[in-house]
Order: sequence, then C-alpha cells, then structure tokens
Amino acid sequence: MTKHNFNAGPCILPRIAVENTAKALFDLGGGLGLMEISHRSKDFQAVMDEAVALFKELLNIPEGYQVLFLGGGASTQFCMVPFNYMQKKAAYLETGVWAKKALKEAKLFGEVEVVASSADRNFCYVPKDFTITGDADYFHITTNNTIYGSELRVDIDSPIPLIADMSSDIMSRPVDVSKYALIYGGAQKNVGPAGVTFVIVKEDSLGKVDRKIPTMLDYRTHIGEGSMFNTPPCVNIFVLKETLKWVKSLGGVSVMEEMNIKKAGLLYDAIDNSKMFVGTVDKDSRSLMNICFVMQEQFKDKEEDFMKFAQAAGMVGIKGHRSVGGYRASTYNALPIESVQALIDCMNEYESKNL
Amino acid sequence: MTKHNFNAGPCILPRIAVENTAKALFDLGGGLGLMEISHRSKDFQAVMDEAVALFKELLNIPEGYQVLFLGGGASTQFCMVPFNYMQKKAAYLETGVWAKKALKEAKLFGEVEVVASSADRNFCYVPKDFTITGDADYFHITTNNTIYGSELRVDIDSPIPLIADMSSDIMSRPVDVSKYALIYGGAQKNVGPAGVTFVIVKEDSLGKVDRKIPTMLDYRTHIGEGSMFNTPPCVNIFVLKETLKWVKSLGGVSVMEEMNIKKAGLLYDAIDNSKMFVGTVDKDSRSLMNICFVMQEQFKDKEEDFMKFAQAAGMVGIKGHRSVGGYRASTYNALPIESVQALIDCMNEYESKNL
Repeated sequence: MTKHNFNAGPCILPRIAVENTAKALFDLGGGLGLMEISHRSKDFQAVMDEAVALFKELLNIPEGYQVLFLGGGASTQFCMVPFNYMQKKAAYLETGVWAKKALKEAKLFGEVEVVASSADRNFCYVPKDFTITGDADYFHITTNNTIYGSELRVDIDSPIPLIADMSSDIMSRPVDVSKYALIYGGAQKNVGPAGVTFVIVKEDSLGKVDRKIPTMLDYRTHIGEGSMFNTPPCVNIFVLKETLKWVKSLGGVSVMEEMNIKKAGLLYDAIDNSKMFVGTVDKDSRSLMNICFVMQEQFKDKEEDFMKFAQAAGMVGIKGHRSVGGYRASTYNALPIESVQALIDCMNEYESKNL
Repeated sequence: MTKHNFNAGPCILPRIAVENTAKALFDLGGGLGLMEISHRSKDFQAVMDEAVALFKELLNIPEGYQVLFLGGGASTQFCMVPFNYMQKKAAYLETGVWAKKALKEAKLFGEVEVVASSADRNFCYVPKDFTITGDADYFHITTNNTIYGSELRVDIDSPIPLIADMSSDIMSRPVDVSKYALIYGGAQKNVGPAGVTFVIVKEDSLGKVDRKIPTMLDYRTHIGEGSMFNTPPCVNIFVLKETLKWVKSLGGVSVMEEMNIKKAGLLYDAIDNSKMFVGTVDKDSRSLMNICFVMQEQFKDKEEDFMKFAQAAGMVGIKGHRSVGGYRASTYNALPIESVQALIDCMNEYESKNL
C-alpha cells in the first residue's frame, strides 16, 4: 500500500535526495563513503560550497549575508540569538509553542517585550496589528507555527533588526532576505533531515553586544571558519544540498510556492466544503505548510474512527498535536499533490459513509 | 585499487553499519525512510532506546548514569561543562589542541588551573605526575589527543568530579565509568558519523551551580526528555546504533582493545624497527588510535616523496596534522588489520628502495 507521508518533521524528502544519499554513503566520488571522508577533504568542501551556493541562489540572498550550517537544532538558536544580539531588551511576537520557547530563552539575557500574542485564542491566528518596540535590540518572529498551522507569509518591515525562525517554511516561497538581520531554522522540514540548522546572517548586524560569548555560540566563529570551526554534520549537509538541488531542478522557490498554494488550496477547499470537518485557523492566517482541522462539534465522537480509517488508507502523520487535537496534514515542498488528493478522497469517502 | 582509510575523523565505519543505513534510508521498517519518519514514532524511539542500551551494555555503565545523544559537537560540550559544573574554579590537564580549546571556554566562567601541561615538548607525552587541585569544582582531561597521537589509557583516581573528553578513544577499551562524573565526545571516530555527540553523565553530579543555564545547554533538559527535548540528529543516531551493534557482535570493547593493541603494536614495531621513520610520541604515552611518525632527520627531504608513494598505494588520510608534520595513521576500531599491514608493507618497500 502507498504511504502518504504527512509528518510534521522530520518529513518526506525528495526521492532523488534519498537515492543520491544512499549512493554517496558508499562512495562520494573519491572511493570513500560520505560518512567516512574527512570534512577537510576537497570532496566534502565541494558539498559544503554547493549547499551554501544553492541556499544563496534559491533565496536570492544579497551581498553582506553569510549562510551557515550548524548543529544543535533551532532550539540552540533560541539562546544564540540573545547571546549575540541582546543588549538590554528584545521584542518577540508570540504565535505558538516555538515562539514561546524562543522568548523564554531571551528572558535569561534581559527584558523581553511581547509585542503581540495570539495566546488568547489558542494561537489560531497570527496577530496583524502591532507596533514593534522601537528601543528593543531586535524583533523576533516565528514565520510558520508548525503545531497550530498558522503562518506569516509576508516579509514585514521592522524599524529594528528583524530575526525570524523559518524552520517550517524556509524555501516554501521567495523571501526578501534584505529585510532580516538573521533567519534560522532546523532543516528537517523543507530542506533536509534532522541534525543540521541553517542560519542566514547579515554580517554587520553582529558584534554589537558586550558580553563574552562562548565560542560555539558566537555566529562570528562559524562565519570565520565557513561552518567548519568544528566537524560539521556532514551527512546531513549532503542531504540538504541534494534537497536544494531538487528545488532548483523544479524551478526554484517561486515554483515551490505555486505548488504549495495549489496543494494547500485543494485541502482547505475540501475542509471548507465539508459538513464534517472544519479548519482551526483563521483564514487570513492559514499556513501552506501545516493544515490543521478537526471534526465539527456534532461529529466529535467520530474523531478516532476517522483517524483509523485514514491510517488504513495509507495516511501517515495526520494526528494533530495534542495542543490542538484533531488532524494536521503537513504539506511540505516534497509532498506530492497526489498525497493531498488521496487524503481528500479519504475524507470525502468517510463523510459520504458517515454523514 | 583498495583504499586504506586512515582518516582521523570522520573516519572508516564498519561496512555493515553503512549498508544497514543505506537500506534504512528507504525503509526503517514501517514503510517510511529513516530521514522521513517522526522522531516521536515508535520506530525511531526503538532506535534511540537501542543506542542507549548498547552504550550502557558495552561500557558496563553503572546505575545513576544517563546516556545522551546531542547535536552541536564536542566543541559545544567545551562550554556546557563549565555552564553545568563550574562554581568558581576548574582544573584542566593540558595535553593538546582540544584540551586547550576546552579550557579556553572554561575561562569565560571562572578561574582555570592548568594542573599539568605537555606544551613544553609539543604535546608529545601525557603528563603523569601531577596533583589534582583539591578545591576545584571538577578536573577535565582529554583521554586521547588526536592531533599529537598521545593517550591516557587508564582511568585515573580524582578527589574531585572527573570529566573526560573521550571523542577519539571511546569504545576502544573498557572504561571504569564509575570514576567519572561526565564523559563526552563527538561520535565521528569510533561510534558513528559526525553530527552526534555522546554524553555519559552521573545524574547526582548535576544541579550544583547557581547560574541560569540556557535550556539547550543544561544536561538536565536532555536527561528529562531522553535526548528528545528537540528533534535529535536521527540518521546520525541510527548509524551510531549500527556501529555499536557491530562492536557487540565482535565481542565488545575488550575485543576492540585486543584488536587495537595488535594493530597499533604492528605499526609501532615497524616504526621502531625502521631506519627511516621515527615515532613522535614518548613510548609510555603512545595512542592506540592515532599513530604519529615522521622521517628521521637525515631523510626529511623524502617526506613529501613518501607521501606520494603511499597515496599511490591507496593510503588515505596519513598526512600528519600541521602541528606535528610527517604522518599520522588513525587506526580506529573499524580499521581492518589488513590496512595496517598494507601501510607497513608500503613503508618497508619505500625504505628498501630509498635507504
């Protein structure tokens, strides 16, 4: 039976990236396997260089920015950001669990102002009307809220350095990188496997704090050594590179965006036209990456039954996070539209049998 | 031509670990690939559990210790150690580049006393006679010095908590874990690919500092969540697990030690019996993992020529680190004795032709 992989991350990757990785495990080209070559070898340096070049090309990253590939996950960035940027005060947009985790770390370093929050309605929307604290050192946003299925799909203007966690929507649309001081995220949604974190950093935004920063937590360390201050997660960076090659081969991030709008549109339409299912997120805040929905109130008793029905039909990873309940279909770049259609067919079939 | 992989790390891995990883990339068992399943799935939880269990079994780790698998490399541990352990003062043994990097980070947190150093003779030995500072919060050692080829192959007694970086000799011999408060290291020598860091931590050694520790840098965070506070480096942990399975299948770390003594012995004997080559490390400090040697003074002009000769014969990664020069053959667990013999044959052949 075909499995349809709606996992929220780690998640489906392009098949060609998986195949090329499996081959490289035995021979990267020089007779040794990807996991067994030196990170200082020219063969691996070429992997790193291509990954950086593709990231820059696909997002049209302007001069003055560096792309880094680090270990430790986006969760380590939650403390690296204030380590490197906070002098006295930081501003955060509170849009979900990950945004809350990020701002919690910042509180260890100074004052944190929550500019706006959607906690009042269980994070089912992204606040639109807010004023960014002018005297803060930076403004931190989470562009896509994986758990709640909301997304800020515009590059906002900020009077202070703008820092974004784009873990779950990087490479899903063109981004105006020039509006950001720093963009970071775990790779394990749209750009690779778990175990590598991407960082896009504007060089002249750094070096403005007085504190002593541990070497590994200082972005300048990694800029200075081209992400090779210590041994990088080589295999993970290789898969990332292969994933970006696939994005490029299909036409880049504009094409990804078209595909994502089409895929998410199909599923949101099905939800909106259903008498049984209902979306959980305000329409103007709906994510193209994570589509959250529940059973309408009168069908709540069928929630578990549909889950089993869908799983039996090959749907994987559609259980909603416990904070929201119901269902979540993650429709990242590599998820084929056929999987979305299969889920819709499954919903329609269930509805016709059970309404 | 057969390649003999003497890389210092990342380095040769057991073939079976590479093969099983390549298979798992397509299907971990439940129909989805290793990089595409949720880290919260039972299939991946089983991988994590088995990796932890094997680590505990192979090193005979006593009760009261936890095994963690983290991102960020051993270099991140250099600051995590003082974050979690230093109140006022720490003691360090200075035996090479990595030991120096570790103690440099500790200086950000308090006073560092260098108990002994082998810097006086370019780290060609491990100091034996030293008194551990009684009033320090911990004593930090680097058991194997990858760059210089020296190793401390005994578990010393310490009156204060003993902390060891075992990046390059973990699983190469039985270790009396009960003598340590913390053991850590990058996986990319004896236990897996780059991108995952192992930590063996005695639970009751933690919680004795007052400072606020960023969540990701607090060992207790990862103990509490079984290394799943954030998304772990899944594929890297899988390879580690497969590598440990291979160690166990051969009989465990005692057998590894026998093999390592035999392999290193062969090569050290060849060096000692040579009229052309000479070892760089004092005999009582020689590493079983990284065997460093140079041309004797009168043959220095042939150094580059032998390198080419050896490379043409399939030797990979034998160039010495620039801090030492000459040659370094890393003979980690997974390196077959046939590769050591091939290098010796190569040295003998060159010597017979050029002496």
